[in-house]
Amino acid sequence: MKLNQFAIMPVTPEQERIEMEQIQMIHERDLALPPVPFFHQLLINSFPEARTLNSGEERIAGLMATPEQNALVYLRTHDTISQQVFFNLYLQLLGFSPERDFSLNEPLAITPTVNLPAFTSSELNNNDMLHGWYQLLVTHNTTGQTFLDDLTSRGYFLAMVNNATVKKPIIFNGKAQAVYDTTQLIREVVYVESAQDTDHDGQRDLLKVEITRPLESNSHPVPTLYTASPYNQGTNDEAGEALTHDVTIPLTEKPAVNNTVADTLPTNRVVPAPRKVAGLTQTAEETMGNSFDYSLNDYFLARGFAVAYASEIGTKDSDGLRTTGDVEETIAATAVIEWLDGKRTAFTNRTDNVEIKAWWSNHHIAMTGRSYLGTLATAAATTGVDGLKTVISEAAISSWYDYYRENGLVIAPGGFPGEDADVLAEETFSREKQPGDYHRIKAKWQNALNQMTLDQDRTTGNYNAFWDARNYRKDVANIKADMLLVHGLNDWNVKPKNVGKLWQAIRDLPIAKKLILHQGPHVYINNLRSVDFTDMVNLWLTHELYDVDNHAETILPNVLIQDNAHAETWRVQEDWLAPENPETTFHFSPDTLSEANDPQPVQLGFSDQLPTKIFHYYAKHWDQWQTALVDDSNAMLAGHRLIFKTAKRAEPLIIDGHPNVHVRVAVNQNIGLLSLQLIDYGRFKRLTTSPVTLAGQAMDLGYHFKKESLREFELTRLSNYQLISKAHINLQNRDGLTTTKTVSPNVFYDVDIQLQPTHYNLLPGHQLGLIIYATDMEMTVRGNQPLFYTVDLKATNLQVPHLRH
Amino acid sequence: MKLNQFAIMPVTPEQERIEMEQIQMIHERDLALPPVPFFHQLLINSFPEARTLNSGEERIAGLMATPEQNALVYLRTHDTISQQVFFNLYLQLLGFSPERDFSLNEPLAITPTVNLPAFTSSELNNNDMLHGWYQLLVTHNTTGQTFLDDLTSRGYFLAMVNNATVKKPIIFNGKAQAVYDTTQLIREVVYVESAQDTDHDGQRDLLKVEITRPLESNSHPVPTLYTASPYNQGTNDEAGEALTHDVTIPLTEKPAVNNTVADTLPTNRVVPAPRKVAGLTQTAEETMGNSFDYSLNDYFLARGFAVAYASEIGTKDSDGLRTTGDVEETIAATAVIEWLDGKRTAFTNRTDNVEIKAWWSNHHIAMTGRSYLGTLATAAATTGVDGLKTVISEAAISSWYDYYRENGLVIAPGGFPGEDADVLAEETFSREKQPGDYHRIKAKWQNALNQMTLDQDRTTGNYNAFWDARNYRKDVANIKADMLLVHGLNDWNVKPKNVGKLWQAIRDLPIAKKLILHQGPHVYINNLRSVDFTDMVNLWLTHELYDVDNHAETILPNVLIQDNAHAETWRVQEDWLAPENPETTFHFSPDTLSEANDPQPVQLGFSDQLPTKIFHYYAKHWDQWQTALVDDSNAMLAGHRLIFKTAKRAEPLIIDGHPNVHVRVAVNQNIGLLSLQLIDYGRFKRLTTSPVTLAGQAMDLGYHFKKESLREFELTRLSNYQLISKAHINLQNRDGLTTTKTVSPNVFYDVDIQLQPTHYNLLPGHQLGLIIYATDMEMTVRGNQPLFYTVDLKATNLQVPHLRH
Repeated sequence: MKLNQFAIMPVTPEQERIEMEQIQMIHERDLALPPVPFFHQLLINSFPEARTLNSGEERIAGLMATPEQNALVYLRTHDTISQQVFFNLYLQLLGFSPERDFSLNEPLAITPTVNLPAFTSSELNNNDMLHGWYQLLVTHNTTGQTFLDDLTSRGYFLAMVNNATVKKPIIFNGKAQAVYDTTQLIREVVYVESAQDTDHDGQRDLLKVEITRPLESNSHPVPTLYTASPYNQGTNDEAGEALTHDVTIPLTEKPAVNNTVADTLPTNRVVPAPRKVAGLTQTAEETMGNSFDYSLNDYFLARGFAVAYASEIGTKDSDGLRTTGDVEETIAATAVIEWLDGKRTAFTNRTDNVEIKAWWSNHHIAMTGRSYLGTLATAAATTGVDGLKTVISEAAISSWYDYYRENGLVIAPGGFPGEDADVLAEETFSREKQPGDYHRIKAKWQNALNQMTLDQDRTTGNYNAFWDARNYRKDVANIKADMLLVHGLNDWNVKPKNVGKLWQAIRDLPIAKKLILHQGPHVYINNLRSVDFTDMVNLWLTHELYDVDNHAETILPNVLIQDNAHAETWRVQEDWLAPENPETTFHFSPDTLSEANDPQPVQLGFSDQLPTKIFHYYAKHWDQWQTALVDDSNAMLAGHRLIFKTAKRAEPLIIDGHPNVHVRVAVNQNIGLLSLQLIDYGRFKRLTTSPVTLAGQAMDLGYHFKKESLREFELTRLSNYQLISKAHINLQNRDGLTTTKTVSPNVFYDVDIQLQPTHYNLLPGHQLGLIIYATDMEMTVRGNQPLFYTVDLKATNLQVPHLRH
Repeated sequence: MKLNQFAIMPVTPEQERIEMEQIQMIHERDLALPPVPFFHQLLINSFPEARTLNSGEERIAGLMATPEQNALVYLRTHDTISQQVFFNLYLQLLGFSPERDFSLNEPLAITPTVNLPAFTSSELNNNDMLHGWYQLLVTHNTTGQTFLDDLTSRGYFLAMVNNATVKKPIIFNGKAQAVYDTTQLIREVVYVESAQDTDHDGQRDLLKVEITRPLESNSHPVPTLYTASPYNQGTNDEAGEALTHDVTIPLTEKPAVNNTVADTLPTNRVVPAPRKVAGLTQTAEETMGNSFDYSLNDYFLARGFAVAYASEIGTKDSDGLRTTGDVEETIAATAVIEWLDGKRTAFTNRTDNVEIKAWWSNHHIAMTGRSYLGTLATAAATTGVDGLKTVISEAAISSWYDYYRENGLVIAPGGFPGEDADVLAEETFSREKQPGDYHRIKAKWQNALNQMTLDQDRTTGNYNAFWDARNYRKDVANIKADMLLVHGLNDWNVKPKNVGKLWQAIRDLPIAKKLILHQGPHVYINNLRSVDFTDMVNLWLTHELYDVDNHAETILPNVLIQDNAHAETWRVQEDWLAPENPETTFHFSPDTLSEANDPQPVQLGFSDQLPTKIFHYYAKHWDQWQTALVDDSNAMLAGHRLIFKTAKRAEPLIIDGHPNVHVRVAVNQNIGLLSLQLIDYGRFKRLTTSPVTLAGQAMDLGYHFKKESLREFELTRLSNYQLISKAHINLQNRDGLTTTKTVSPNVFYDVDIQLQPTHYNLLPGHQLGLIIYATDMEMTVRGNQPLFYTVDLKATNLQVPHLRH
């Protein structure tokens, strides 16, 4: 077990003492005690569920101080505390077992990776123990929380929560603590009036916002975590499914165009005057019941942050139409920030125009969320809106073209063939859930949706004005908020290019920015055991939103990457996709990739067309198709793709960057597409594709508040290969994204194809492989056309950027 | 969508009015209003999240009254309410969509199954609407709760929760409502002193009990849901795994014995005198943090029930040793009931002997829980302990022999080969989690564990005194508590025999008893959409524990069975395994089962021994072995088992009972075992093996309290077969469970084998199949011995009990 922690703030002994007193773990007078009574006090204070001395001492007796004596007996029979005794108890309090995880004779020989304090003498004085206990409090236990968070969930802060004289927030080791009363949360709904009228009804759109805030925010202003989620008011799954496009259609020739983005979208953007305010109140008229909560937000709710969810234009109880990522959505997302920052009006209901201010807000706002939610956070950041201090953007889209298209092709997000901007718009248009409202807007919505179906242009797959309007990276120069980006290196829904290109775009901006890359697909990581993500976010948010000078910007690694080849391993880097990374070039010969440049005049071909029955089977079962594609002994796909492998590698290779394939290719018709997969070959145990639940509902996010399960990737999945990266290109787009050319049959073209950016630890004994194919059953259109591709190996190579050895 | 409800209590119009006033849905004066204002009032009261009239009316405007008018406009422009308008709104409030689920022109033609009130006239008067709204409140919505529970989760009862003058509990339609304050729950720990000393330390065992009770229990006594769970204080998974027995061992001959249960267990049962009580208090000294909660218990916590969890002898913070199901565990389970009933002592801690009574308890206790938890509930019921009014026993063991053994064989629970009583004891001996305590008890525990390994006797698999002491069915005559039994018909962990034999044993007892059989494996069902399980339990518990005369015993079906062949279908029966069910006999010829009695002098044989490589592969991959076993075209297992199938059936057959196989069999050695699987053959869509999550965290169990996900079995799993039932027998036990005989090589024996009891709807077009084999890779020992079995088909038949057509 490795408890990797990156959010521990180094503090001076004096500061440790002050903070230990502040959380009432010690009192000043305790320091004058002899060491054993002092230690006894620390132990007693670490069993908050025991409300009497005797009950606490029973708990102490449950710990072993030495191989023979329990801690209570030890304390009663000794007058000094040795390092060994200290560490024995330290480890047991963290949940380690002296039977299984360490020896009471030699606690420091513990194999799990855990934060341990250093002492200079073998007998500890009170200052040593104070330091040691401070470190204990900030150290992760075996169930994924700091010991202080564990104590919190057992009632440690109860007295301070209920003590009106305690000044809140309380910051410990640079992080806000759970001293807010989660039994008395205030829940209220307001309607923000946004400077837009996306449903063209002559009135500004009202946007429903659901706020949960601590009672204490009535007394002192608090920061807000704001999550914009078009899913929160419900989704129209059946309607979305009905709209899903058929992908079993042919690839067709498209006109040659010099600049695909030269078209313009009609703008009929009229912003009506604001409503006339008819009154002002501090009291909301509406509250809300059960809804989706992001557990990371809940964690901070207990720590004095308000949480706001808004579902955006076109969702239930709001006005407007869904637009799937254009500027109107961004305007709606920022309208809520402006209200939280005191610069925009909200009303208590949709009728009476009675204004309600976010009078409890400290005007410091962070946006959080994954996928579409993180996308809206990124979008809001690119406006430079005031009040938005930071975004924590997880698995976010940074350009919608990179979600639904690639290099002139319609490319589905992994697992969702046929989905497109219009499908997602329909799915999230939850005004449909309110029949009385939908009745009014239905015709307008159908028109808008039809227009979107046209504008997104599935016929060409071109990067046109529609997609250009959904590329947030054009506006990164506006960003003022600090950025914490999180993405899965195996996320084939929102592909890594989204975070890669954003990272490259913000790398040199004068803001603080951090990047965390994990080995998951499209998942949250705040429940992993092997990394203190929640603590990192706490350090970050306490800095950003409470203005605490905790050096979060220097303590947190700039780039933190989970290793794919070792369990529970996270590596700190200064950068990702660093331009200065060296590249290794691999050359091609039949079946083989090699660093030796020994060009051979060989041409290899493959047919994209499969026997009809096999085609239809694989079109349905992508997972089996993928397995067959990669397996060079598979007979079904023999002759239908080219596989090249290196020898088993003798040296490790840590790929870091965009692999690039230069290919000389011809096709027998005037259309063509190429797909590539970069593969780690070899039968090895690899990380599970998703985190495994280690303990259900094991972490309480406050005190009897909300729970989260403990999860971890395990190195137990025996597999023949692992996908490293992939790419797709329309051969008509060989000269760039915005230029389309004709393809002449049987003419060779030189094409450069950049694969999705990655970071991959290829261990010795593994083989690097590249697969060249055409139709991707999961992602491209599937025409099963009689296309035959020929690759000239001599003029084909693979460049792999990597870390210096 | 079928919203099957079985817990709706028929009430008179007068009673409906009284209850509607009691929950403040109407006030007496409202009845004098004209129909439209009356209806307006009902609607307004059904949007508790809106705190003002205007805000409420915005919600009303979100509903369509007619195809053209929203409800608010309708109310403002009409002075009567038609049935059609009423039903349109009724269905929308339940979550049905007029776009998708029903037509606003003809709401009563809705295809989903839903409870609808009947009216006599097309225009509704106030009494009609009162009746209709009452029915709405008790009807399930599309997200798995009654509309009243939905309103509750949106804050409906808030004012009554916080109103000290409201008399609690509030009962609506015979069920307790969530009017208790879940933000002020009291959590306390006590130590019950049990009349036993299982760790032989000269002191009675103290048992830790964790209680959560409403603040209101300080003012009026409340009933308790008590769940005994040896898992709650943690488990020793690694130690348990290390103890797991090797099952890749040969079957061996055992001595012939007339009565295997004639042995006796040594009894050194000494019960020390109780501790001397040193004081009395009403205040607990200890509380607790996060722990496992059963969401069904949480639901009732919000409805005025206290919830107690106890982890039994040998668990963390308690005394004693784990015994896996013997009388000591039962004594421990009942000790907690006795304390809740005022008849046993508990202390505030483990040291000071200060007594604390369950002074807040109304002495009405129910036990709940699944698996081991339900087993302890069953065990407690068989003592007839006072105070225990009912047990809701889910997937419970009724005899441990039926969990770890079968017909003289060691048989693993599905998925856990090598597990046994000792393994489970070690896994749950959570005193190990307290190193200071474990240090003291370790040697004693190892001795006890070693003894258990001997006593459980894996060598013979015999039903001996050890297992007889763990058979609760011997004591059913003591049962005074009413019994609600719940079991999965596809539960191969705790196999259906456990509930079947218990049901048969209690069928004629003078208690109320109910049985619910679902199509799941070893799962909870309180989150299913298709059945109102939680409401049934509420009706039951309100009757049992609040003494409300709601006729639960007659309203709830005696036997409720989920159909396997149709989605969301639950059938009411008077009985299960009814002795009067007719039987159909099937006769055997090669490959064929037939009702025609056309005996043929054919003997078929099969070898149990597999090629080593195949054996080891299947020993590891039981799922693939199972698929191969059933597939008569599978070459690997050809010659290694016999498969017989009927023709495709023309008539449906609803199997209900214990299928029985009479087989004449010989084996080539002096040992032998037979296994049987009864199979539904045919490539059809069948129910998913487990419920699918329809909506994560969709149900709030109170008001911003705890959440549960909504789940359902879906008829989407395309499969070639479905296991109906199975059985295993040691041929030495052919004359009965407690008699072992010798087996002479190559001598034919007539053996009757009762399969696990079941209820199975075999549709026309399906084939009934029986597989005769020996080694069961998942459940038996796996000797891979050169055993050859011969079956004489002429003297072999299958009897299938079924419902009358």
